[in-house]
Amino acid sequence: MPASTLLDLLKESSPRHLDELVQWLKIPSVSSDTSHHQDVQQAAKWVADKFQNAGLSPEILPTEGHPMVFAQTPEVDGAPIVLVYGHYDVQPVEPLDEWISGPFEPTVRDGNLYARGATDDKGQVLTHIQSVCDWLATGQPLPLQVKFLIEGEEEVGSENLERMLPELRERLACDCVVISDSGQYAQGQPAITYGLRGIATYELQVDGPSQDLHSGSFGGAVMNPAIAVCHLLSSMVDNQGRIQINGFYDQVRDLSDSEREQWRRLPQDDQQFAGAIGVEKLFGESGYTTDERRWARPTFDVNGLTSGHQGEGVKTIIPATASAKFSFRLVPDQDPKKLTAMLEQHLQDHAPIGVRWSLKPSHGAPGMLADTDSRFVHAANSAIESAFGVKPVLIREGGSIPIVTRFQEVLECDCLLLGWGLSDDNAHSPNEKFRVEDYHRGIRASAILWDEIGNLP
Amino acid sequence: MPASTLLDLLKESSPRHLDELVQWLKIPSVSSDTSHHQDVQQAAKWVADKFQNAGLSPEILPTEGHPMVFAQTPEVDGAPIVLVYGHYDVQPVEPLDEWISGPFEPTVRDGNLYARGATDDKGQVLTHIQSVCDWLATGQPLPLQVKFLIEGEEEVGSENLERMLPELRERLACDCVVISDSGQYAQGQPAITYGLRGIATYELQVDGPSQDLHSGSFGGAVMNPAIAVCHLLSSMVDNQGRIQINGFYDQVRDLSDSEREQWRRLPQDDQQFAGAIGVEKLFGESGYTTDERRWARPTFDVNGLTSGHQGEGVKTIIPATASAKFSFRLVPDQDPKKLTAMLEQHLQDHAPIGVRWSLKPSHGAPGMLADTDSRFVHAANSAIESAFGVKPVLIREGGSIPIVTRFQEVLECDCLLLGWGLSDDNAHSPNEKFRVEDYHRGIRASAILWDEIGNLP
Repeated sequence: MPASTLLDLLKESSPRHLDELVQWLKIPSVSSDTSHHQDVQQAAKWVADKFQNAGLSPEILPTEGHPMVFAQTPEVDGAPIVLVYGHYDVQPVEPLDEWISGPFEPTVRDGNLYARGATDDKGQVLTHIQSVCDWLATGQPLPLQVKFLIEGEEEVGSENLERMLPELRERLACDCVVISDSGQYAQGQPAITYGLRGIATYELQVDGPSQDLHSGSFGGAVMNPAIAVCHLLSSMVDNQGRIQINGFYDQVRDLSDSEREQWRRLPQDDQQFAGAIGVEKLFGESGYTTDERRWARPTFDVNGLTSGHQGEGVKTIIPATASAKFSFRLVPDQDPKKLTAMLEQHLQDHAPIGVRWSLKPSHGAPGMLADTDSRFVHAANSAIESAFGVKPVLIREGGSIPIVTRFQEVLECDCLLLGWGLSDDNAHSPNEKFRVEDYHRGIRASAILWDEIGNLP
Repeated sequence: MPASTLLDLLKESSPRHLDELVQWLKIPSVSSDTSHHQDVQQAAKWVADKFQNAGLSPEILPTEGHPMVFAQTPEVDGAPIVLVYGHYDVQPVEPLDEWISGPFEPTVRDGNLYARGATDDKGQVLTHIQSVCDWLATGQPLPLQVKFLIEGEEEVGSENLERMLPELRERLACDCVVISDSGQYAQGQPAITYGLRGIATYELQVDGPSQDLHSGSFGGAVMNPAIAVCHLLSSMVDNQGRIQINGFYDQVRDLSDSEREQWRRLPQDDQQFAGAIGVEKLFGESGYTTDERRWARPTFDVNGLTSGHQGEGVKTIIPATASAKFSFRLVPDQDPKKLTAMLEQHLQDHAPIGVRWSLKPSHGAPGMLADTDSRFVHAANSAIESAFGVKPVLIREGGSIPIVTRFQEVLECDCLLLGWGLSDDNAHSPNEKFRVEDYHRGIRASAILWDEIGNLP
């Protein structure tokens, strides 16, 4: 099919494309919250129905947690097979009072569609689903086979998919995994992402006295668990953002000179970046640019702190317990399991007397680097340039898609990360959004990508 | 009246004494919680009614906050005037699920009466009210004038009483203030408390980005407010409990050698003390015994920590904001106002770039030391020995009764702190209790005290 015919068709369908995204976003599929169990099921069914209506035979694959949806177009002899991976689950929405419109009442303002999941990842993965379904609607065959795996546990660590991956090996067999769960470099500057950071998340609990104590009668006699948590977290990172855990940097792969050289040509503006997120100054490890720190340097963040009296007024207690949720972003070649061991040693070395600590690792995944010179990267280059009118830049991203590394290992395939989002899309935050124009461009780029890959020499 | 007659009378009335305390404890007079406003009023009315029924003419003195109850027995020519000060307000009850019986369902178990306010301070102040009311019921005059001031804002800093004290100067004029809001040294070892620590409480808020950010996309670019709070709190105290704020120890009055010598004779047992509160080891500034650290050394405690994701599961964010409630216990001659200035300087010196901080002081009061050789101490000595069968020891306490110093200044009076509580009474904690036997002994000691003071040479 000539690309122009297909693009005309897609243009005509764009009101329906938006309408369908709105429908999907209305389903509050928060995977980490057991009270949303039914909604998660419903979001899976929504995407299965979408495939069904396009004439495919989707399967809902049960897991020990939330189900995955699998679908595939017919085999095409001699042509590559692509697997589109995405997720229909979303992050929690708190703090709710900071949303301008409800997180599950999708609303367009100033060219943006606001809703939880708009960019991460319903809006982005739907671009590929729309391009394939619309292509099939023309009655013409696709020039390659496209498989889809849309899971419901990405935001809680993809543990079931990871475990089941070996047994799904045949079904998911492909030459390249295509994932749109990242971003453009900037508005109007699309990107191909060839690297992701890994992740390791933990919960630390420190227990002191068997119950809250009066800080007058007992202050000076017992270690305060809230102070212990502060000492411990503070000991893990210096005031320049440099992590202080013994051995932490041993496996960190340095940035290559050519990579740094390329990134320096990107239009970085720290002052504008700071302004956009509402801080006066950016912060981080010295000797690296902001993009280098966000994409290719490991970091430590405290995600939550809980202890003692959090209500109104004063309560002068020594709290019985204190806890913290924290996470590291890792880079190649750091190993999350090794980090857990280092961390336990660090806590052992630094824990004050008079309190007991326990560390609960939740999920971990290494970082990823893809080949920047593969035939799929070349195909994506053309497709994106056609749809966006601008050549994409090659970047890494600071976020983690833990399953990507596992796909590379188990399916022995290439990997293409094509992000249509923007860095101010508020993924994981209130007022998540996705530019409506980029949604439509993403659908176009996706359609052209099938054409380009199908006609690879 | 011969002491023996009075003591027989008190013994007969002891079931009623307990019953009345139970009634008062059922009223949830949490002064810091606006939803308990009506309960606070009711608790004030309960004690006013008690005075009324004894034939006194109580007054409910309104304040800008919760009211105070004032009552007095007739003047006695040439005899001293004593002012009994106490409070009918109580601490919040959270965490509610740790209470074995409801905080406002007073329950006797193993000789203890469990309820919020049992020891702090309804049970203790009621000992003096009972002794005076029962004395009056005999038809005999008291050998001295006793005034009562029972306030409703002690647990929130007594700010209104403090402000109104100069205008109440005439009405409250006395030779000695008697306060029972402290403890015995140990079970069976009563004490007279001649020193209290001061207090200064604060809330620190650290603000970073204008909203929670994705720790993947932004980790490494911005200072994390939760880490900033940990760094700041951690910088205030070393891992030995020694406070690191510049100038903090400059005004600290050292313990005298004779004081340390006396305290060393008290039966201290660190291991038992640790066991009672559920910790393996005690903790604190080196070079001081546990009692010295609790009673006569300044301390720093974090009372509460709040930031980011506190719910179930993982949410990998950089929180927009983090806050901490913390407090210092001060000793003579530290000045809470000077501390606030030092603290602001410390925060200015230590705050990382990229975040904004604000410090909100709530209440502050200096520590107190009373004359250990006054005629009132001698009278209390005899009264306590008669009622408890043991000579009281002279101690200090780690808690703070901010108004005491103000009484000394404004009323130019002596001060007698007679605590009937125990260190494991769980004041400010779940399962607050008061030994029933000590409640009755307190009433007896109080009655004999009036006799002793009335007959002072």
